[in-house]
Amino acid sequence: MEKVNLSEKFMSFNDLWDPRIAGELNGQQVKLAKLKGEFVWHSHEKEDELFLVINGKLKIEFRNKIVELNELEFIIVPKGTEHKPSAEKEVWVLLFEPSSTLNTGNTQSDFKKEKLKWI
Amino acid sequence: MEKVNLSEKFMSFNDLWDPRIAGELNGQQVKLAKLKGEFVWHSHEKEDELFLVINGKLKIEFRNKIVELNELEFIIVPKGTEHKPSAEKEVWVLLFEPSSTLNTGNTQSDFKKEKLKWI
Repeated sequence: MEKVNLSEKFMSFNDLWDPRIAGELNGQQVKLAKLKGEFVWHSHEKEDELFLVINGKLKIEFRNKIVELNELEFIIVPKGTEHKPSAEKEVWVLLFEPSSTLNTGNTQSDFKKEKLKWI
Repeated sequence: MEKVNLSEKFMSFNDLWDPRIAGELNGQQVKLAKLKGEFVWHSHEKEDELFLVINGKLKIEFRNKIVELNELEFIIVPKGTEHKPSAEKEVWVLLFEPSSTLNTGNTQSDFKKEKLKWI
């Protein structure tokens, strides 16, 4: 049982769109991701997903609106809700979601990461 | 589905040791708490609990060590683990835990809050 410093963890990797696992509790995981550019439209059939911005600015498009998240803002995307994250500049994002959640949800894409690394 | 700004939410209440619910997903809740002084020793029989410091410094005593969390540091306290949070100065903490989690766990205490308010 050790504390986790978010800045140190984010500074320890550079890959984009490749979430790292930073913690696990009650069947959920804390994931850290660096994002830049445009992701793919997708949804998660069974899992709600929380995005919390730690550094930078994250845009999430929904079918009916666009939300911009700044530092220390979060949004919960309910299961079944199509969304497409993007970022003009690199953004550091903390995700809370079930351990079973796949980054690309129901969409086939080269962005898919099936075995995430612990950090 | 609206975004949540953590600073705005924290600035909207002043009660200490009285967590507010800021979000819910997958049977878990995001809670925001302002802490100052000493809490009671307790544990949660069935629930792991995540503490993430947003502003200030949080001390958590365990039976075998003390951990100090600074801004943007988190720790996951496994179920069954006795712990006692405290803070010399007011600290803003984000908690992530099952919706069923009681703040005082298995300990009878005046600190107990049974019906948390949404914020």
